[in-house]
Amino acid sequence: MDGQTRYRLDIAYDGTNFNGWATQPELRTVQGVLEDALILVLPRADGVDYFPRLTVAGRTDAGVHALGQVAHLDIPEAIVAKGFARTENSFAAELNRKLSKALSRDFDVAAHKIQDAPPGFDARFSALSRTYEYKISDAEAPYNPLSRLDHWRVESVLDLSILNQASEVLLGLRDFGAFCKPREGSTSIRNLQEFHWRRGADKTVIAHLKADAFCHSMVRNLVGALVEVAKGRLNLARLTELLDAAERSPEIKVAPAHGLTLLAVEYPADNELASRAEQTRGIREL
Amino acid sequence: MDGQTRYRLDIAYDGTNFNGWATQPELRTVQGVLEDALILVLPRADGVDYFPRLTVAGRTDAGVHALGQVAHLDIPEAIVAKGFARTENSFAAELNRKLSKALSRDFDVAAHKIQDAPPGFDARFSALSRTYEYKISDAEAPYNPLSRLDHWRVESVLDLSILNQASEVLLGLRDFGAFCKPREGSTSIRNLQEFHWRRGADKTVIAHLKADAFCHSMVRNLVGALVEVAKGRLNLARLTELLDAAERSPEIKVAPAHGLTLLAVEYPADNELASRAEQTRGIREL
Repeated sequence: MDGQTRYRLDIAYDGTNFNGWATQPELRTVQGVLEDALILVLPRADGVDYFPRLTVAGRTDAGVHALGQVAHLDIPEAIVAKGFARTENSFAAELNRKLSKALSRDFDVAAHKIQDAPPGFDARFSALSRTYEYKISDAEAPYNPLSRLDHWRVESVLDLSILNQASEVLLGLRDFGAFCKPREGSTSIRNLQEFHWRRGADKTVIAHLKADAFCHSMVRNLVGALVEVAKGRLNLARLTELLDAAERSPEIKVAPAHGLTLLAVEYPADNELASRAEQTRGIREL
Repeated sequence: MDGQTRYRLDIAYDGTNFNGWATQPELRTVQGVLEDALILVLPRADGVDYFPRLTVAGRTDAGVHALGQVAHLDIPEAIVAKGFARTENSFAAELNRKLSKALSRDFDVAAHKIQDAPPGFDARFSALSRTYEYKISDAEAPYNPLSRLDHWRVESVLDLSILNQASEVLLGLRDFGAFCKPREGSTSIRNLQEFHWRRGADKTVIAHLKADAFCHSMVRNLVGALVEVAKGRLNLARLTELLDAAERSPEIKVAPAHGLTLLAVEYPADNELASRAEQTRGIREL
């Protein structure tokens, strides 16, 4: 009875009133709220000292939102064996029901789904890619106060053809050191697969970005830099120089956190989960 | 110099942190915040004791939002004559610029536009109709915490064909006494011109309503009643009886305020503004 079962959780949150994903003492964080709710609803097993620890695909910063966040959780067999009073549901389904009830006071976070993780699944290292959206309300349309939770308000009109032209320059496998907050022992080489801009139905400017993974504050730096380009304060040649230098520069402004939403995390087919995890662990933890 | 000039203001707000439109002592209201900002930015004229008072098209309740609210404001000629330091802009445009700056600390309210009102314009009585939207996130799609400011969360799946069928029954010129909080000296006869339901891009359920005017809490009672119908707790025959009785009944539940947004106020052509105001004043203040 000393094995563990791994579960996959699909999570959404409004980051406004959270100090980011990762647990921090005395601060309200998404991980903290979820883990506290889990401990409340999980069955207890005699002699098993267990605290639920979530491993997440995208460690979002303070103020960043998520609609398609993914995490995993290992639960000792002894606790799973205890089960819930309702036995007609699977353990995962019943845990989801109880967790949703416990979270219903916290309308800013929801766990949409809990399911048995396929063998080899690791929320962080099995992921093939992450997709983010960054939303801006510029001066093209009257300001909508209801959009202020997840839109950056910019007082000028942004030209989407300029934004899209500059975004193309940044695509591909590169050292994004110019756009990353450095982190001890981690590389800033990433593969930026998609980066384009469109206007939504309400004329909102929406940036769509997809990469194998993003380093710390990378999306916000990419968006911030491109808005500088659109405003005519940074030209394409200089943007390319900064990219090639792969070092932080004050010319690159970071866009505010609240415009950013993690939309989705993509995983390979079940039979490739373990090898994908092996591979990314090797690259990113060098 | 004792005349006044009338201005039209186009206003948007997130009602979450307001105690409704109308000024109340000690409470934060939309009217209160706007009038306080106006007094701050308007020029002063010697011997003119003036406090700006807004007249509004739709007096929204606590928690209700607006994207297309309209108000008017009369400013004494003596103050208009003082003008602003920048003279290249019209008085209205410069007032708008200064007001927007003063409001920029309050990201939940914005005055999009201030312009000279055409002759005979009255924000309340010249209006031909008001259009509202009521948004619901039902169980059709995973709950999006970012939509919680302006969506009512309903835990079942709503059938739009039932909602649309029941809405049709309510259309037309009727006594909506069953759906109105009674108010001294005012009638509950209204002309409900449009009432239909659709799903938005994100599967949100959106009710669209248009009437010459809505009596107090009428939209929320109409939506609340129809959700009871969709849930199978109220049938069409009984809904019709309640409508015909034109009296309040506990069978009609009021939907929460935060799902409701005033979208637009429609006015007739300029040459009909005064006669329209004359006409509605006669009907509604009997």
